[in-house]
Amino acid sequence: MKPYLKESEWSIIEEGFDPEKHEISESIFSIGNGHMGQRANFEETYTGKSLQGSYLAGVYYPDKTRVGWWKNGYPEYFAKVLNATNWIGLNIVVEGQTLDLNKVKVSGFLRELNMKEGYLSRKFTAEFPNGNQIKVTATRFVSMAQKEIGALEYTIEPMNFSGTMSVTSYLDGDIKNKDANYDEKFWDPVLSEVKDHSGTVIVKTKKLDFHVCSTMETRFSLNNNPIDVLAEGYNREKYAGISYEVPLETGKVTTIYKYVANVTNRDYKIDELKMVSEKEVKQALAKGFHQLKSEQREAWALKWRDSDIEIKGDVAAQQGIRFNIFQLNQTYTGEDDRLNIGPKGFTGEKYGGSTYWDTEAYCLPFYLATADQKIARNLLIYRKKHLEKAIENARKLGFEKGALYPMVTMNGEECHNEWEITFEEIHRNGAIAYAIYNYVNYTGDKTYLKEHGIEVLVEISRFWEERVNYVPHKKVYMILGVTGPNEYDNNVNNNWYTNRIASWTLEYTLYVLDYLKDVDRKKYEYWLDKLKVKDEETKKWVDIISNMYYPIDKKAGIYLQQDGYLDKEQIYVKDLDPKHLPLNQNWSWDRILRSCFIKQADVLQGMYFLNNEFDLETKKRNFDFYEPRTVHESSLSPCVHSILACELGYKDKAYEMYLRTARLDLDNYNNDTEDGCHITSMAGTWMSVVEGFGGFKVINDNIVLNPFIPGQWKSFSFKVLFRGARLHVQVDQEMITITNETDLSVKMAVLGEHYDLKGNSTITLTH
Amino acid sequence: MKPYLKESEWSIIEEGFDPEKHEISESIFSIGNGHMGQRANFEETYTGKSLQGSYLAGVYYPDKTRVGWWKNGYPEYFAKVLNATNWIGLNIVVEGQTLDLNKVKVSGFLRELNMKEGYLSRKFTAEFPNGNQIKVTATRFVSMAQKEIGALEYTIEPMNFSGTMSVTSYLDGDIKNKDANYDEKFWDPVLSEVKDHSGTVIVKTKKLDFHVCSTMETRFSLNNNPIDVLAEGYNREKYAGISYEVPLETGKVTTIYKYVANVTNRDYKIDELKMVSEKEVKQALAKGFHQLKSEQREAWALKWRDSDIEIKGDVAAQQGIRFNIFQLNQTYTGEDDRLNIGPKGFTGEKYGGSTYWDTEAYCLPFYLATADQKIARNLLIYRKKHLEKAIENARKLGFEKGALYPMVTMNGEECHNEWEITFEEIHRNGAIAYAIYNYVNYTGDKTYLKEHGIEVLVEISRFWEERVNYVPHKKVYMILGVTGPNEYDNNVNNNWYTNRIASWTLEYTLYVLDYLKDVDRKKYEYWLDKLKVKDEETKKWVDIISNMYYPIDKKAGIYLQQDGYLDKEQIYVKDLDPKHLPLNQNWSWDRILRSCFIKQADVLQGMYFLNNEFDLETKKRNFDFYEPRTVHESSLSPCVHSILACELGYKDKAYEMYLRTARLDLDNYNNDTEDGCHITSMAGTWMSVVEGFGGFKVINDNIVLNPFIPGQWKSFSFKVLFRGARLHVQVDQEMITITNETDLSVKMAVLGEHYDLKGNSTITLTH
Repeated sequence: MKPYLKESEWSIIEEGFDPEKHEISESIFSIGNGHMGQRANFEETYTGKSLQGSYLAGVYYPDKTRVGWWKNGYPEYFAKVLNATNWIGLNIVVEGQTLDLNKVKVSGFLRELNMKEGYLSRKFTAEFPNGNQIKVTATRFVSMAQKEIGALEYTIEPMNFSGTMSVTSYLDGDIKNKDANYDEKFWDPVLSEVKDHSGTVIVKTKKLDFHVCSTMETRFSLNNNPIDVLAEGYNREKYAGISYEVPLETGKVTTIYKYVANVTNRDYKIDELKMVSEKEVKQALAKGFHQLKSEQREAWALKWRDSDIEIKGDVAAQQGIRFNIFQLNQTYTGEDDRLNIGPKGFTGEKYGGSTYWDTEAYCLPFYLATADQKIARNLLIYRKKHLEKAIENARKLGFEKGALYPMVTMNGEECHNEWEITFEEIHRNGAIAYAIYNYVNYTGDKTYLKEHGIEVLVEISRFWEERVNYVPHKKVYMILGVTGPNEYDNNVNNNWYTNRIASWTLEYTLYVLDYLKDVDRKKYEYWLDKLKVKDEETKKWVDIISNMYYPIDKKAGIYLQQDGYLDKEQIYVKDLDPKHLPLNQNWSWDRILRSCFIKQADVLQGMYFLNNEFDLETKKRNFDFYEPRTVHESSLSPCVHSILACELGYKDKAYEMYLRTARLDLDNYNNDTEDGCHITSMAGTWMSVVEGFGGFKVINDNIVLNPFIPGQWKSFSFKVLFRGARLHVQVDQEMITITNETDLSVKMAVLGEHYDLKGNSTITLTH
Repeated sequence: MKPYLKESEWSIIEEGFDPEKHEISESIFSIGNGHMGQRANFEETYTGKSLQGSYLAGVYYPDKTRVGWWKNGYPEYFAKVLNATNWIGLNIVVEGQTLDLNKVKVSGFLRELNMKEGYLSRKFTAEFPNGNQIKVTATRFVSMAQKEIGALEYTIEPMNFSGTMSVTSYLDGDIKNKDANYDEKFWDPVLSEVKDHSGTVIVKTKKLDFHVCSTMETRFSLNNNPIDVLAEGYNREKYAGISYEVPLETGKVTTIYKYVANVTNRDYKIDELKMVSEKEVKQALAKGFHQLKSEQREAWALKWRDSDIEIKGDVAAQQGIRFNIFQLNQTYTGEDDRLNIGPKGFTGEKYGGSTYWDTEAYCLPFYLATADQKIARNLLIYRKKHLEKAIENARKLGFEKGALYPMVTMNGEECHNEWEITFEEIHRNGAIAYAIYNYVNYTGDKTYLKEHGIEVLVEISRFWEERVNYVPHKKVYMILGVTGPNEYDNNVNNNWYTNRIASWTLEYTLYVLDYLKDVDRKKYEYWLDKLKVKDEETKKWVDIISNMYYPIDKKAGIYLQQDGYLDKEQIYVKDLDPKHLPLNQNWSWDRILRSCFIKQADVLQGMYFLNNEFDLETKKRNFDFYEPRTVHESSLSPCVHSILACELGYKDKAYEMYLRTARLDLDNYNNDTEDGCHITSMAGTWMSVVEGFGGFKVINDNIVLNPFIPGQWKSFSFKVLFRGARLHVQVDQEMITITNETDLSVKMAVLGEHYDLKGNSTITLTH
């Protein structure tokens, strides 16, 4: 599909209403604040194609699994993000005719997502079949300052008539997930109530007893002066509506303000929900829409201060990267350590389970560098809290010790059910260990290791210990029957990445144990005792590390993705007839599997994670070998390649890879944006700029920067937070300018030269 | 579960009614005649647990596929055996109370499947809540002589009262498949009609337009004298019922006779169906129940004459083998080359698609040796007719040439949807080629090759040609990404069996081309032209044959099941804690996959098929290596092992393996007989006796016999038909007696000695 959105530095703009693209726009123009999110559905009734979506973070449903042929070990349930009470609803009837963009003549339609200030707005003129014309504007946001509050302002101005309008402001909890496996409704009614201008709906999930309570307040003004309109309430199961009759006069603007609090029993006791939501909404009402909106602007200004990337000379690129950062900040704000980052955020239902290894492998770096370190820490704590379930999961699969984290989860339980992924894509366990290293390396917060990290590391190491098998006649340890990051190969033996990350986990765990022994003997002994770590066990780990088998090809000087990889027919992607691409839409699965083509970084993922282990020549040989065989059909692929290409000085390749993700959703590159946006891969785009073009790393407590700028750009700049300091890195075609915006001095190496950048100072160098 | 059936040489007998076992019995006591089949549901109303099942051969439904995650190349439909009009139904109300074995007191319950004469009977005494007692007998069969006819006789004798009985004899087409993927009904109404004592129901499938027309006639007699009873008809959509009021008198026996014709538009034009079924049922009515029953006895006598196996000294074994032979003869009679052998026959719905490689690998030998050769030939023709679809199937999966037969099919289209089976278990193609060899080798009917065989062989060979890939640096051809017969390993490289059967297909195809060239140059050129066989093509085949890669382990002197098999942890099944068995119920799928444990013969399947290629020592080394690692969790596994064990002189192992299948369903060994019986594996049991204990083979147009008798038996005997002759082979602990029951003389080698056994003569030798 060709881009239909207007390029703009700070906004996403859609001019003209195209019902065919409406569902895509509903995804792209989604708003969220970490606590809740809302697709860009219309407030007023809309009978055209639409995917209604209101989501509350952490409220999910264990939908019964659907499989073709059941296999032992499959999870019984698939936890799904729940589509919850529709709180934006306004039913508007003008002179007896319902305002429905599917039925009126629409002109002057403009939809804008203002990313700088964090709101969605829309305006249009509607002409009813009887010729009556109205001008409408609608603005809404979910508050970053008061997380449970959503607010909207909706204005109507009759152009060529006077008359009456009936407005019904409602909450509707009778909602179904489109992706329900067996077409079931997941919500039961608890309470529906209306009183004066206030309405409340409480619904609860049929399983797990999640309660969601929504309270709304609706107010009117005429030409900006508050007016009192008679309210008539109506409620039924899961629904509360209040109807108003409003006179309309040509040229006079009627404004509807709707404030809604959405609270859940994740945060309050069930019997307090109503009281809390009423209190919250009253506070919002007291502030009023404009104050709430200015608080929203301030909250977003802070987000942008710490996380903005500026690109000059390329508006599309600028818009793309800001959209990615905006969506990431909408999805996860990190205050709640029970939450995580769903692949679709609050923009759709798909990939029902919330947490993948995407979080550790792709999202953590973004939050490390753009937010308070406790936010990244909470992402680690999330897994720590799931450790017991991960241990249970390993038991379920027949392991006697250790923990296997799930491939997809909401509450720590596995909820993905394809054997080649669920049971075999075990490298995810390595990413969870690596995230601990990554966090400590970045923040220097070694206390995390002794408080939580060590427990997770030991249990993951134990899993690897049991999962490897010793092959006596070869005197090596192997890992058989896995799927590596490249999901276009299943059930392979000795995936190099998996073998390496497994062994690396053992190495790091032993390192952390030694570290603890050195610095805090008491804590060390506490954990040894609590985790019952035995000498034989750590000795076994040393043995595995020493004798792990790694497939290599000596001739080509590369690590082999897995045993037998070179027995495949070796073809470059560039030599494929383009009609075959993307493979996943054109080839049968078996053909993909036996081909040499790679979905996403696999050996190269290891070179990205364990970058310092490999010399540049090794990275080059492996990149030169694997990249031409890689189809990048995962949205998570190009970023890793872009970063490595930057390191290797492959400027064109780096930029090409960057372009493949930067505007993935805005340009609906994969033809699936109507299902929701690809949130986790957005973090990869951020990585491409900061770690790729910026050449930003943290090595031995020092920042390393090796920037280069694509020829297509005038300049780019990014912010990183590092151990209390905030740096602003600006790169143009000649100069690199690094400003320390805080008081703390920061040690760094830029293009190989060491600097000690004092607080509130700047260094400038040419490149 | 402990056996609950009585041992008997010619019957299956259940004494006493146990509702918990009723569904198992419904499977075991099923009746069929190749055209139709019927589970042992009760004629009268039964509100307890029951799986109603009436099936018509070749009438199926393309149910929408259900998968967790769709993969490119999956079939959209899964063809299902259709549960069709219930034609046995009698609703019996005695003095206002419905006869329902779930609600009355049952005594003297006896159910018998008379295998010798081919009928099912039942008797019991029922006491109603009001104390009224009746004696009931019920006998029914589906006629082998007149394939579309089912007949039943149902007697009621009041023991302690006189009164009235209402009987409704009905046809009910409002039937649902229990295994429907989306709980849909597959039947639409066409016609329901009642007239006098006759009722007709025509239903058609919602897709594919299969029409099934059933016509019933019901009659009564009192103490064996026909009586006229007033009939009152009633019909509604998909249902026709006729009700009768019958006086009951203590001690007098009322008999209901019900005759039903079930005809389909597979055999007649749609607008003729009613006429045909009425004609058929009138004929049956004219003959009457007793004549039909004696025709049935005669038809079964012929079946037994050609296929019986007698075992003396072990009633359980005798009953087991006869049950298997009986079910095979009920399932497939071979007149109709559009039909095949479903894994559950007419005994249940599961494994919805009808045809698996089971037919070629396990069932063909049974029909070759016990029925006219045109019946085995029809099994080959079945695949020939599906050649176009197999070519289409290969195209769908991206192959430019050749044919890939489906894993599961009803009409030639693939309807299995797990990638590791559907796309990768391609060795099935080899079995279909092998069946042609097997048929020609057995029958000597080489005309089949030039009429049909060559076309199938060439297209399968072309598939293999494209499916192999050349590995330049090793100078070999490989086959990557397959599942072998051992489904406990998926997506492996170079499964020895697959590589061997692929190369064998090429060898045999080239041999057949050469043969044609020699004996029928015109036909040879006709096929060369029609199939566009090019020189380069056959040269390529020669090259593949010469350079096919076979994984071996030189040290152990064995063929390796696949690349990397020896990297697995090597454990014997006997060293496993029995609590782990069966693995498929106790281990997660990944654990099974990475273990060394084997589900069913894989390398050994190759040694069974291509037996003469390998010397005894090679077979022994491979058997000794693989059998201890085999869990035999496929019902198709023990027979091949039993046969090879016989050949190797492993008497105990042979008998142990034989026991594992012989009474699989009768003893509900796998705890799943309620879903239906394991029909195709029954052919394996027959093979174990004839090819295993009998040591029966055909080599170079001669019969070879190397019998041995398990110590547990007094004697056993079997029949084989061979090129017009019928041999009766009897083996006891001392003697082998071979009788030629026909006029043709037969050449054979018995225990290595050559004999020319003249017509109607006998040889006897000691062993």
